[in-house]
Amino acid sequence: GPNTFVAVQNIIDAVEDKYRKETGQNPAENIEFQVLFNDFTTNDFNTLFQSLPAGRRYYSAGVPGSFFERVLPKESFHIGVINYAFHFTSKIPKGITDRDSPSWNRDMHCTGFNKAVKKAYLDQYSADAKILLDARADELVPGGLMLLFGSCLRDGVKMSETSKGIVLDAVGASLNDLAQQGVIEQDKVDSFSTPLYFAEESELKQIIEENGRFTIE
Amino acid sequence: GPNTFVAVQNIIDAVEDKYRKETGQNPAENIEFQVLFNDFTTNDFNTLFQSLPAGRRYYSAGVPGSFFERVLPKESFHIGVINYAFHFTSKIPKGITDRDSPSWNRDMHCTGFNKAVKKAYLDQYSADAKILLDARADELVPGGLMLLFGSCLRDGVKMSETSKGIVLDAVGASLNDLAQQGVIEQDKVDSFSTPLYFAEESELKQIIEENGRFTIE
Repeated sequence: GPNTFVAVQNIIDAVEDKYRKETGQNPAENIEFQVLFNDFTTNDFNTLFQSLPAGRRYYSAGVPGSFFERVLPKESFHIGVINYAFHFTSKIPKGITDRDSPSWNRDMHCTGFNKAVKKAYLDQYSADAKILLDARADELVPGGLMLLFGSCLRDGVKMSETSKGIVLDAVGASLNDLAQQGVIEQDKVDSFSTPLYFAEESELKQIIEENGRFTIE
Repeated sequence: GPNTFVAVQNIIDAVEDKYRKETGQNPAENIEFQVLFNDFTTNDFNTLFQSLPAGRRYYSAGVPGSFFERVLPKESFHIGVINYAFHFTSKIPKGITDRDSPSWNRDMHCTGFNKAVKKAYLDQYSADAKILLDARADELVPGGLMLLFGSCLRDGVKMSETSKGIVLDAVGASLNDLAQQGVIEQDKVDSFSTPLYFAEESELKQIIEENGRFTIE
């Protein structure tokens, strides 16, 4: 969508600036860009293609498939961007939606109130992130660049202390109120969770270092 | 759609066979394939992506844009296929739908009854085909292969003599009957034409030779 087009244009502008400074030549005459838009196979690529910005100076392609899997051949791209999406996990961790589990998540989200919940999410996130990093490392050209935007918390900050966490908790509390008034079923509220984990900075760094396919710039 | 998936699989099978014979190695362990599906931006890519064959051994991407323009960066692909589409022209030639023009096409299609109509279509087709060949030549790697399937007539065969031409003429005659009975307007029938030209083999050869970017194998 629109956010992605802005991010894409910013990156192309930056590459062209660098090219201009380093070579003194006009990038428009010498380099071509191709932007590969990846999303789930069930995403609406038709709308994406029809809303591509007019006057863009890049070729476009849509790449269907989960970013937890390989979606491109080896060494296919030079710069990758994950734009406000790195916080998705591939699934809800085991036990999170099970009332009898120690990691049952009463809150709508892992907001930091329950250590077992946090650990379950972090374990899932860590496994997912390593699979994702392996896939992107295969697809990226050697020396290529991966940009991760907007996907983690500062160390020691709990999700429940952030504006997003406060909104999520308010939604969760409202759903609980509705359940207590009998408007919706308590069971459904208790088993509702989201496949999201916003890692702390040091957690993310540790995952990237343990994975070992990328260096952090 | 399904036809395309069959063509894609045939090509991959052929490349893998050749690889196996020439190297004695298993292609599945050594080479990856990426298939770029091109169609108009308004095509339904969602359905395409959701109907990709299960168990396929290739990565997929959708490339939106008219094939009369560049849709990919330079040297992007090794084997290109135009599958029953090379007979489309980019527009109806000038004069074809104009009753006062010498190349006005009374018939629904250029079926070979009128030399001025045929020339108008051939000129349009020739100009379009050269633009298309230039675009593909830029996008293809040096030494790459373009396959054109099912898109021309044998020399001396008129479209009106082929099964497709006979069907088109029958449709055209039926529309004329309906117009004479007042069910539809004669003007609309007279100005209805299709952006299609099925070239004769020698016409297509001449166009490819004049373009000069490809050799015919």
